[in-house]
Amino acid sequence: MALAERWLLPDGVKEILPPKARQVEVLRRRLLDLYDNWGYEQVMPPLVEHLESLLTGVGKDLDINTYKLVDQESGHSLGLRADITPQVARIDAHRMDHQGANRLCYCGSVVHTRAENMLASRNPLQLGAEIYGHAGIESDVEVVSLMIETLLACGIEKELTLDLGHVDVFRGVVAEAGLNDEQHKHYHRLVQAKALPELSAFVASLELTAELEQILLALPRMNGGIEVLQNAQQVLVNAPLVVKQAISYLEQLAEKISKRYPAVDLYFDLAELRGANYHTGVVFSALSPSFAQTIAKGGRYDCIGEDFGRSRPATGFSTDLVILSDISENIAMRAGVLAPAGEELSLLVAIDELRKQGQRVIQRLPEDDHEAQLFCDRVLEKQADSWVVVPRDPNLKLKN
Amino acid sequence: MALAERWLLPDGVKEILPPKARQVEVLRRRLLDLYDNWGYEQVMPPLVEHLESLLTGVGKDLDINTYKLVDQESGHSLGLRADITPQVARIDAHRMDHQGANRLCYCGSVVHTRAENMLASRNPLQLGAEIYGHAGIESDVEVVSLMIETLLACGIEKELTLDLGHVDVFRGVVAEAGLNDEQHKHYHRLVQAKALPELSAFVASLELTAELEQILLALPRMNGGIEVLQNAQQVLVNAPLVVKQAISYLEQLAEKISKRYPAVDLYFDLAELRGANYHTGVVFSALSPSFAQTIAKGGRYDCIGEDFGRSRPATGFSTDLVILSDISENIAMRAGVLAPAGEELSLLVAIDELRKQGQRVIQRLPEDDHEAQLFCDRVLEKQADSWVVVPRDPNLKLKN
Repeated sequence: MALAERWLLPDGVKEILPPKARQVEVLRRRLLDLYDNWGYEQVMPPLVEHLESLLTGVGKDLDINTYKLVDQESGHSLGLRADITPQVARIDAHRMDHQGANRLCYCGSVVHTRAENMLASRNPLQLGAEIYGHAGIESDVEVVSLMIETLLACGIEKELTLDLGHVDVFRGVVAEAGLNDEQHKHYHRLVQAKALPELSAFVASLELTAELEQILLALPRMNGGIEVLQNAQQVLVNAPLVVKQAISYLEQLAEKISKRYPAVDLYFDLAELRGANYHTGVVFSALSPSFAQTIAKGGRYDCIGEDFGRSRPATGFSTDLVILSDISENIAMRAGVLAPAGEELSLLVAIDELRKQGQRVIQRLPEDDHEAQLFCDRVLEKQADSWVVVPRDPNLKLKN
Repeated sequence: MALAERWLLPDGVKEILPPKARQVEVLRRRLLDLYDNWGYEQVMPPLVEHLESLLTGVGKDLDINTYKLVDQESGHSLGLRADITPQVARIDAHRMDHQGANRLCYCGSVVHTRAENMLASRNPLQLGAEIYGHAGIESDVEVVSLMIETLLACGIEKELTLDLGHVDVFRGVVAEAGLNDEQHKHYHRLVQAKALPELSAFVASLELTAELEQILLALPRMNGGIEVLQNAQQVLVNAPLVVKQAISYLEQLAEKISKRYPAVDLYFDLAELRGANYHTGVVFSALSPSFAQTIAKGGRYDCIGEDFGRSRPATGFSTDLVILSDISENIAMRAGVLAPAGEELSLLVAIDELRKQGQRVIQRLPEDDHEAQLFCDRVLEKQADSWVVVPRDPNLKLKN
């Protein structure tokens, strides 16, 4: 790398500078306070840990997305975290001894080996909240509500859409049809691509009953508003019980969420199979016209702690605080008071008192003539024997 | 790694769990607010970047301490940051176009390949503040003051000691004596170890003038209170100008800091040569009897931006927020209000209102009988037609 390029960041790696860093910091506090007010306790898992701990039971996508390191002290393989949820699962399983519901939240950087797309960041600032130890629908309602509250707290409320799915619909259909791994993947690709002619040919080649054929062909069309669920109950009347239970679960969840957040649009995608292989039940994501991609997402992942020796129900969501900050309302910059240079005790005391009151006070450094770039709308100046704050005259320079 | 051990963290890697995570979060906000009140703008550099950017001009220690990765997208070498200061230097040099003083602060995790000692963490939560673009003593006074304010804000004020040194003393003496690299390192080791008999033999072997011999032998004894500086001016009367200027600089700095913080003890170590090779002037660290090691440290590093094509004066300090949290006053846990399960609209509204007032409200989940472990001292209950908060009777269970 040439000298002139040393300051460039790797493609897709982003850093946050003023004034945006303040925006991110303000939202970080606002959202962690929101989670605290809902009873979620913050945890701070490490950036690196044993690779097995990070990747156990989470599937291949996360494996590929995780940087590997060798621990020079032990020779063990370490991973640089690409996701925080497996860490929180480990913490719930082993580091805390809650028996009932355990509400946890976190905010921290993760690193991906590859960006999801041309515009995506390889180092999101992952923020999320999770409930461990409760299997009922109420915990799903709580985390979906908290995900919506997260967006509302950032001023993202216009045309907010909640996208709901359930992994048991797709998985149940595939299991009933007896698809092998390869067929399963092929079918999934065709469904995701909504490649209907190829799908027909593929389904015909499977030699299934007419009923099952109809179900496999119907799945890619099962997305849209609440009517999708009513329609699905009819089309899938002969589907396995697990599929029908999943649809019924989505109906109940939708009703509870609609009651709490009537302004949020609901969208259902029954062919949805989320990227993170750890999901085991309902999956959900939030969208808004202000951003082309998913803003926040989550779901239920009941078995995630199993490989740590304590399998507990779990549900939660996560988001990227940098994206939230990009699409949220701008937070005003904080104007300061410019104080003159000097060591006079009365001046130092006056500065100290203003700062203790929560004011931003910048004391000018001698021979630093660039105070124009400091965002100060007031100055501290001596009048008679006391120091007073007065509006700043932008045409006047401060004396030393 | 056996299944049963998957939840273990690598040696020296630490994570922060409740209730300590709250303590860390509270201090994080308090200190970033302090820096904001002093006019320092927050930056958030990435966890990984090009290795050359992280290691340029910082010396071998940091190189050994930095995990290396290969960018799968470009094939370039990346580093997982072991220090944030070189990143902030890059930001000042290239990403911001301040001409005068630029005050920056940060808080983020770093990872070290090896722990400094048996008890040290390999993943400190580095917190620091820096001034770029000002060469005068006033910027050193400001960052030393802010370092002291950092500890005071954490309640660390008893027997606080500020340790001051200046790299030009040691470097000037070594240059005047004409020591080669190997002799320099050997001399440094002997001085650090205060190995006086070996030092005498070594210095005698160098065949220097009597004056220089005397200076080289005096250096390891030059530590203690302010009298060290007065004594040094006599012993080093024939030392190179740069050495005498450094001592005079320490005298001025000590006077200014003593005036502002009379309760802080000053200690001088003229043989001090800090680990981070980027220091070019005064170096300082803070100690307290409550912790066996340095709590915070910093110094001047005027050339750090040079390799990014913009050499500006710089001075700053950093600390580990986890250590600060370990030795600071305990922050009280936040008690909550336990609300019953249910979807009654009046209940949901009552919960929402309490949370909006900043109260912590945990809504009980059905069939979750472990609310005793939740830190709630009040409950929300219905009296007549309204929901009221009442003290919690620890012997009673909430109804669903």
